Amino acid sequence: MSDEGAPEAGDDDDEFEEVVARVRERVDPDAEERERMRDVAAELTSRAADAVAAYCEDADVVQVGSTARGTWIAGDRDVDLFVRFPTSVSREDLEEWGVAVGHEVLPEGREEYAEHPYVKGEYRGFDVDCVPCYAVESASEIRSAVDRTPFHTLYLEERLDDELAGEVRATKQFLKGVGVYGSDLQTRGFSGYLAELLVLEYGGFREFLEAVAEWHPPLTVDPEGHVAASFDDPLVVVDPTDPERNVAAVCSATNVARLQHHARAFLAEPTVDRCFPSDPDPIAAEAVREHVADRGTTPVAIRFSPPDVVDDQLWPQLRRSLSGVADELDRRGFDVLRERALAAEDRKTAALLVELEVGERPRVRRHAGPPVHVAEHAKGFYEKYADDPDVYGPFVDDDRYVVEREREFETAAALLESDALFDVRLGAHVASALEADYDVLVGDDVAALAGPFGVELASYFDPEP
Amino acid sequence: MSDEGAPEAGDDDDEFEEVVARVRERVDPDAEERERMRDVAAELTSRAADAVAAYCEDADVVQVGSTARGTWIAGDRDVDLFVRFPTSVSREDLEEWGVAVGHEVLPEGREEYAEHPYVKGEYRGFDVDCVPCYAVESASEIRSAVDRTPFHTLYLEERLDDELAGEVRATKQFLKGVGVYGSDLQTRGFSGYLAELLVLEYGGFREFLEAVAEWHPPLTVDPEGHVAASFDDPLVVVDPTDPERNVAAVCSATNVARLQHHARAFLAEPTVDRCFPSDPDPIAAEAVREHVADRGTTPVAIRFSPPDVVDDQLWPQLRRSLSGVADELDRRGFDVLRERALAAEDRKTAALLVELEVGERPRVRRHAGPPVHVAEHAKGFYEKYADDPDVYGPFVDDDRYVVEREREFETAAALLESDALFDVRLGAHVASALEADYDVLVGDDVAALAGPFGVELASYFDPEP
Repeated sequence: MSDEGAPEAGDDDDEFEEVVARVRERVDPDAEERERMRDVAAELTSRAADAVAAYCEDADVVQVGSTARGTWIAGDRDVDLFVRFPTSVSREDLEEWGVAVGHEVLPEGREEYAEHPYVKGEYRGFDVDCVPCYAVESASEIRSAVDRTPFHTLYLEERLDDELAGEVRATKQFLKGVGVYGSDLQTRGFSGYLAELLVLEYGGFREFLEAVAEWHPPLTVDPEGHVAASFDDPLVVVDPTDPERNVAAVCSATNVARLQHHARAFLAEPTVDRCFPSDPDPIAAEAVREHVADRGTTPVAIRFSPPDVVDDQLWPQLRRSLSGVADELDRRGFDVLRERALAAEDRKTAALLVELEVGERPRVRRHAGPPVHVAEHAKGFYEKYADDPDVYGPFVDDDRYVVEREREFETAAALLESDALFDVRLGAHVASALEADYDVLVGDDVAALAGPFGVELASYFDPEP
Repeated sequence: MSDEGAPEAGDDDDEFEEVVARVRERVDPDAEERERMRDVAAELTSRAADAVAAYCEDADVVQVGSTARGTWIAGDRDVDLFVRFPTSVSREDLEEWGVAVGHEVLPEGREEYAEHPYVKGEYRGFDVDCVPCYAVESASEIRSAVDRTPFHTLYLEERLDDELAGEVRATKQFLKGVGVYGSDLQTRGFSGYLAELLVLEYGGFREFLEAVAEWHPPLTVDPEGHVAASFDDPLVVVDPTDPERNVAAVCSATNVARLQHHARAFLAEPTVDRCFPSDPDPIAAEAVREHVADRGTTPVAIRFSPPDVVDDQLWPQLRRSLSGVADELDRRGFDVLRERALAAEDRKTAALLVELEVGERPRVRRHAGPPVHVAEHAKGFYEKYADDPDVYGPFVDDDRYVVEREREFETAAALLESDALFDVRLGAHVASALEADYDVLVGDDVAALAGPFGVELASYFDPEP
């Protein structure tokens, strides 16, 4: 179903450079944007430094993230300010002072919460985060994850020159283009920091692609050669500022493999389109029904109002619930072909879609008892069923008693509509949401999902690497 | 579905003895029958001895089998005569002379073939086999299986007195009653010789039942303590006349377990009926359809004319073919619930019946390719499917390329009706029979099997231990 050319060995230097140049034209901020970014960042840093001085003399302010390192993609307008307090400051004071400074810097800002509370707001057209953290001696002594961030910027600032920063931008756009950019728990892909470390490690965008094309996961990249833990991930990139952390911990095996596919394909045939793909057109209900008829499967879906939690909580819960439901369907004989968790942008609808090869099974199922020679168990089994008129048997097969007895659920829908749904492994918030209300769609009825999930279903029925 | 009482601990001596006495009344030959058997056997032995003297001076004649040992069931009219030639006689002469003697003793007899040719015929109302064999020094020096038989009779004659012979008759009738008597390859049960050895070992019918009730297969009974081979059978009874032979080699695990079940049940509640059961009434086509509807399964059957081979060739071939077909259906996703090979008494019809939980699967099936990182294979797989409009994908799942492509057979019937049937493990003669002609019955159509197989289907749909 894919119309992209297959990856091929052999490529043309000029073609590659020419395509990268066209990508760079779109992702490199121009002089004006850089100038403006510098101005705004300096102004914000200075405002924050002034503000914090009133609370704590030994605090300082650093700008972090891609806009601090010159690796942002043209048009990104995120400025991240970290207000660093000495470790002698109590956590309570840090939180209180951090938020106060944030509000002074960003008068229109609002409080958000990650590991600490912090303030998020707009300033001269930029999206600004003002985050308090501790100034620890090294990244391995952090008190919370945010304390690590300044070390990342420090590490990269020392190593990324303007040329490498350009390579990073091309790399990040490529990762975005092929759908693996982002360490959020929906994407489970490559963070900006991870992209920068890999470009640094390999020396450029092309070198990065060439290395990726040859990866044999599981593999470890360890820029400082100081790994100090063992990891069970397909890709391990040891944090140069913390030997016990895998920067790529969140990357799924699927995304590592997808990146490999696209790296090979791009090296074989570089195209700007691979870096700037367009979303598929949303699919219509009628087309969903046609796909279902063509495939001959039985799709089932649980549709519900998603719990009101942040994305990084929602997606692991959806995924966990989906696999719990799919595993249970499978275990009950409703063989699963493919599955997908769905959550609409507006968070009004979520769905767990499971496409089944077998949606129905016979009334009877085989139930094997103990070996006849295990006297006590065998006797108990035999007596339990000998006079049951609804059971075929007991008879003997090989060395065991066997009966054919009623199956609990003859259809997948019956299982999903029953309380047994709540015995499967569900995310806690998803379970609560389902307890409130859900409905079960079967077969053609899943076409109703085309409303909120037209784009997702378009890609579901035309899956690509 | 079974109406028999469950086995229970605790029984009543008098009740057991009383039931056995009633069984013995029916299975012990009376004085007149014994007298007549003695007369006929003596007459036959003498006629055979006279006849063989003309061919070979050193040959002799022995009567073997249960009628020689006094362990026959009243009404059995089988007399087995073995004509023993010295080992100096060539195989050709043995065969020629053996058949000639047979025809002289049984003028109306016909030639049959086991390992040698032999003559089978009627004499004064008895069914007589006249079999040539070699007089070897011991059973471990036999040239063919029949040479062993006289040693069995010799061994048992020395050990079975009248009382034990009576215990043997009760035991054999019990084995018949519960359906595990016979070492033919349809039954795969207990031969008469095996029953006699076990009664001898345990000391009587009741002791046999009590021992069987406690068996923990795999187990070995070795009357002479001279086992000289290792066996992979659920029950091993080492031949006292040949330390390398398992007399119970043909016993299936199912029959060993069924015997255990019935031994326990009979000890708990002795009944004459368990020793003399009546065949179930044949089931009608309409009742087959009702069972199929009730069970909700998809039965399929291959109906054909069985090959013209002896039963002991036919049944292993039917069984092998049945498991070949069932395994292939299972492998293709047509999940098997139960299966049965059928061959009509008149040998005009045979059928392989397989009852499926899943008779149909979707058009598409998942086909996983190599891991993406295995570059050459992955590339080959990707290129093979990338432009195939009938395929969904390739996409990436975990570390592999995957496509969803057309399934070869969407229904079990389509598989059975195709040439793929001949790629499964079939008995050679069954394969030839199917090559000549067969038809496939699906769902309700299997009700047509009620004609030739009404009794078998009655027990199939009311299975008992």
